[in-house]
Amino acid sequence: MTTIRRIGVLTSGGDAPGMNACIRSIVLTAAAHQIEVVGFSHGFNGLIEGDYKKLLPYHVQHIIHLGGTVLKSARCPAMHTEAGPKAAAQTLQQMQLDALLVIGGDGSFKGALAIAQHYTGQILGLPGTIDNDVDGTDATIGYATAIDTALDAIDKIRDTADAFERIFLVELMGRHSGFIALSAGIASGAEQIICPELGVLKAGELDSVIRPIQNAQVVKGKSSYIIVMAEHCYPGGSTALAADITKAIGIECRACVLGHIQRGGSPVGADRILATKLGAYAVEQLLGGAHLMMAGEVNHQACLYPLQASGEHKKRIDPYLLRWQQQVAND
Amino acid sequence: MTTIRRIGVLTSGGDAPGMNACIRSIVLTAAAHQIEVVGFSHGFNGLIEGDYKKLLPYHVQHIIHLGGTVLKSARCPAMHTEAGPKAAAQTLQQMQLDALLVIGGDGSFKGALAIAQHYTGQILGLPGTIDNDVDGTDATIGYATAIDTALDAIDKIRDTADAFERIFLVELMGRHSGFIALSAGIASGAEQIICPELGVLKAGELDSVIRPIQNAQVVKGKSSYIIVMAEHCYPGGSTALAADITKAIGIECRACVLGHIQRGGSPVGADRILATKLGAYAVEQLLGGAHLMMAGEVNHQACLYPLQASGEHKKRIDPYLLRWQQQVAND
Amino acid sequence: MTTIRRIGVLTSGGDAPGMNACIRSIVLTAAAHQIEVVGFSHGFNGLIEGDYKKLLPYHVQHIIHLGGTVLKSARCPAMHTEAGPKAAAQTLQQMQLDALLVIGGDGSFKGALAIAQHYTGQILGLPGTIDNDVDGTDATIGYATAIDTALDAIDKIRDTADAFERIFLVELMGRHSGFIALSAGIASGAEQIICPELGVLKAGELDSVIRPIQNAQVVKGKSSYIIVMAEHCYPGGSTALAADITKAIGIECRACVLGHIQRGGSPVGADRILATKLGAYAVEQLLGGAHLMMAGEVNHQACLYPLQASGEHKKRIDPYLLRWQQQVAND
Amino acid sequence: MTTIRRIGVLTSGGDAPGMNACIRSIVLTAAAHQIEVVGFSHGFNGLIEGDYKKLLPYHVQHIIHLGGTVLKSARCPAMHTEAGPKAAAQTLQQMQLDALLVIGGDGSFKGALAIAQHYTGQILGLPGTIDNDVDGTDATIGYATAIDTALDAIDKIRDTADAFERIFLVELMGRHSGFIALSAGIASGAEQIICPELGVLKAGELDSVIRPIQNAQVVKGKSSYIIVMAEHCYPGGSTALAADITKAIGIECRACVLGHIQRGGSPVGADRILATKLGAYAVEQLLGGAHLMMAGEVNHQACLYPLQASGEHKKRIDPYLLRWQQQVAND
Repeated sequence: MTTIRRIGVLTSGGDAPGMNACIRSIVLTAAAHQIEVVGFSHGFNGLIEGDYKKLLPYHVQHIIHLGGTVLKSARCPAMHTEAGPKAAAQTLQQMQLDALLVIGGDGSFKGALAIAQHYTGQILGLPGTIDNDVDGTDATIGYATAIDTALDAIDKIRDTADAFERIFLVELMGRHSGFIALSAGIASGAEQIICPELGVLKAGELDSVIRPIQNAQVVKGKSSYIIVMAEHCYPGGSTALAADITKAIGIECRACVLGHIQRGGSPVGADRILATKLGAYAVEQLLGGAHLMMAGEVNHQACLYPLQASGEHKKRIDPYLLRWQQQVAND
Repeated sequence: MTTIRRIGVLTSGGDAPGMNACIRSIVLTAAAHQIEVVGFSHGFNGLIEGDYKKLLPYHVQHIIHLGGTVLKSARCPAMHTEAGPKAAAQTLQQMQLDALLVIGGDGSFKGALAIAQHYTGQILGLPGTIDNDVDGTDATIGYATAIDTALDAIDKIRDTADAFERIFLVELMGRHSGFIALSAGIASGAEQIICPELGVLKAGELDSVIRPIQNAQVVKGKSSYIIVMAEHCYPGGSTALAADITKAIGIECRACVLGHIQRGGSPVGADRILATKLGAYAVEQLLGGAHLMMAGEVNHQACLYPLQASGEHKKRIDPYLLRWQQQVAND
Repeated sequence: MTTIRRIGVLTSGGDAPGMNACIRSIVLTAAAHQIEVVGFSHGFNGLIEGDYKKLLPYHVQHIIHLGGTVLKSARCPAMHTEAGPKAAAQTLQQMQLDALLVIGGDGSFKGALAIAQHYTGQILGLPGTIDNDVDGTDATIGYATAIDTALDAIDKIRDTADAFERIFLVELMGRHSGFIALSAGIASGAEQIICPELGVLKAGELDSVIRPIQNAQVVKGKSSYIIVMAEHCYPGGSTALAADITKAIGIECRACVLGHIQRGGSPVGADRILATKLGAYAVEQLLGGAHLMMAGEVNHQACLYPLQASGEHKKRIDPYLLRWQQQVAND
Repeated sequence: MTTIRRIGVLTSGGDAPGMNACIRSIVLTAAAHQIEVVGFSHGFNGLIEGDYKKLLPYHVQHIIHLGGTVLKSARCPAMHTEAGPKAAAQTLQQMQLDALLVIGGDGSFKGALAIAQHYTGQILGLPGTIDNDVDGTDATIGYATAIDTALDAIDKIRDTADAFERIFLVELMGRHSGFIALSAGIASGAEQIICPELGVLKAGELDSVIRPIQNAQVVKGKSSYIIVMAEHCYPGGSTALAADITKAIGIECRACVLGHIQRGGSPVGADRILATKLGAYAVEQLLGGAHLMMAGEVNHQACLYPLQASGEHKKRIDPYLLRWQQQVAND
């Protein structure tokens, strides 16, 4: 068992609900192993600039339910220079930290790998992003909450769409994957889902979108029609696509870009539990000597996965649900 | 006491949470007075086309909590022609309806007044719109829910704004009034509120917006800065204003247009109670002979107000809160 | 205009959602008038023991949405002795505080009045309690949130009651008034409401409760039946009443005691706005020389009311809704 | 591939959020395969009494988000007699139904097995219960929502517990398993969890409960202390235990029995997705000839499991989290 006396932790990249629950779990578990924890502010910036505070169990007592991150997050352009990772590593060395835990997405993990070039301690990643686009874990911290936030919004839009018998196009986040769109689309009973896995559309390429609308309206007398769409799937986004649909079929289609509300909010149970589990597991694995790995959960079991491989985008959205949506709901 | 045997009810214009609670109350109260109720579908369209269904207490048993409207709503261009109101009145006469209740905003009340020219029965309006821009009632049905929906979204944006120390510009509905923007802005602790009552901005006219941002960022070390803005207050809306702010101060300002989610959702308690009270009151006032009036609530007391006057926009947003926001929060 | 340099604030009695929004508003408004604020911990206990902290705008930056109270609350038995109020006054004098703001219910205001016997500064009360049983203000801070919390629970119970066609008896808080029970009962479409204003029942006195149940079940084929009940309305509470109903009619009636969840939660918009308004108003009125008054809101206008009179229980629950529930919904 | 022309579906036992989403998915998927669906009312009662309605896609259009069950549920004592299952089978035969889908818990599956003795068609079960105590599926339909409902309540209790520095004992459902208690306890950051897997307590056996409270209060200065407890873990339940704790340590411990609100509410995303997936999968598996199996999901993959084995209680609550709670959080 490796001796670990002091560790650092930071949150990096887009914030995600559950990051605070993860910080809490790390601090509590570390305390149970007599390990000191310092938290760096604003992601890698705090590491480079030496901006940190000691984290005692007292500090994390009632943060499990808070959205955002008490450590703040930030993009850190300096990490893309040669000097950035070196400076970060230097802070870790000077502070005599035995390990660093990075909570973030694959971009943040790249930063962690760059620091590892200059640092003698251990580094582990924890998957914290609403987008769920990280390999080596079934779900990322924040993904479950983002689905329910999107769902809540779509349910509300359904109310008004249904009252008016209207067509709505709801644009969700997801960077370049359809995880949120498929999950929120299935869960909301959306009539149609547009996501990268089904192909990115070209401007004016409306056939595949319009045909099912017309079928549904004419044949099935649907009183409202909701299309859930991942970002980056149509040039100009949902606003452009809604305008094009309206023009093509002569029925008004309204766009709604959900935006950053998907990042906030109190984490749902699933995210708090996942965050707690992975935080605890990461600390324990540090004691077991783990390095350059990500702590994830696969098939309900905590496990390690090479940090390097976490960004390879091998993880697939549920093929069963994708097919069902195509064949049954989108008919 | 007037003899009322059968009445019609419809929901018109933008739907609002609580419309179903209002329909339920009308039906239950009417039943207690042995009055039959028929509900017309799709606003005035159903009235013109004779599209209706009988509403028994059984039909409204569990609708008090539902968003949208079970009667459907719609704009009705025919009502702006000469033939529309005549056709609507004809339906009422032929069906031997003693009165019509119209749940909607001031546009819907104009329609009701036009019908009254050709109809011998009584007509009352009930204020149902999230915008609260109807005179003669302190609050409209749907307004309280829209505030809480907007608030919930802004709270979420605060989480991520705070985690990233960012500036956000949140655009809310409100047609040409700042009711929702001021209420949701005060309630969310927004640093700045832009609403028609404080003046509509011209393109590039950024001084009044930017100065408080710079004060707050520099002097007070605020970790996030949220501007709540009513629609129609800047050319190009919040997207244009956010871009202009970003350019002017060199710190990224992100726009979030909340859109139609503000219309949906299960009504909060205040809206269900108001809707229940006004629905019951309207039926009772029909029995008292009321005609061409709106049933509103002023100082917690149900009361009547001339339908004609409901759209004069005399109602002011709370001057105390407006001043406080300007002097204290927006400092 | 009185010169006010430093003031103290405390939260006392049962906590209520919106207390933090009120503290924030007091601190921000005071800062705008160059007034220092100190917050005492644990209600009057902190005042007696000199347990306090300075409150700067920075400290209240993001607390507007938090339930509970950052100053903590507590009952304070010492305030019922002769020494307690004297010790409290002594702290105020020694700290050279020009005024004290007490956020709480009528019990807390009695404590404030007792302190005033020994204190030369000004004292104002702010109504913070979910029960709404304070005269001189249409609503207390926390009441609107408690209604919506209760409503959310009853909506959920309706789901399962309806699925099973069951009778449920939901017991809500309210000390000795029916404000929460009537509002949540009307808003949830409860079939029956039992509250002190309609009379406290004796053990076994079931006729008035059972008759409408039997009518509804037999005559109207209701698929579920929900009774909302204020606490202290039946010996042994809802558990005893549910058992007695079950025995009397042979259909299972289940009790659900909502309890302390009604005290917590993020305040809804109405409570945050009221808290903000009253906090700002109280600080301004201190400058105007106000003393031994409560800052309340009547007919949407902030106003002062003698602190002494706040506990006289003259405020009535809405007679219109009470009558409607009795005649129409409870038929 | 078996020829399936008409199938029956029913919901049985305690209702669970997501049952409607499951019914919807069954109807939509069946329609895509030209299979007719009839829904029986009130669980097995509707089957015995021939109380049913045809379910078309139109009927399930907007039910995915509704709590409860549109088919109603009920216990059915007749199923424990010899005649009950026979009568149920007879209805199926007479109506020429090729298969029956039963959504419920292990008790409902026993009923399904009894019917199979007298019925020549296929029978499949779908796990619908908040308790998650069904083998052969990682989660049951309704479990995820029940966790978040409980969590929401505990978060609220934390607000008031924290404001008052109090001890609360929250009793959750779970029949004879700790799934909900452990998940909601971990997710809420409860200081202590009492569940059957850790042993049922005898009256007065308080040592294991009290010791960690005293440690936490004295040593760690916790401002509130929450114990989450599964039902049936102490004689007299949480009310008795809270009283005994209060007596033993001289600090007030309050009980809160969450009760039936855990059964209701709009299903969260996870439950709607699971319900949709299992409903679709069950229909497809009928076509593949499946019989006397349960459609579950294991490791994110839909799969079949012998209906007979579903009630063997082999499924374990997460041992990692259980240990962590014991060693770290409950320290």
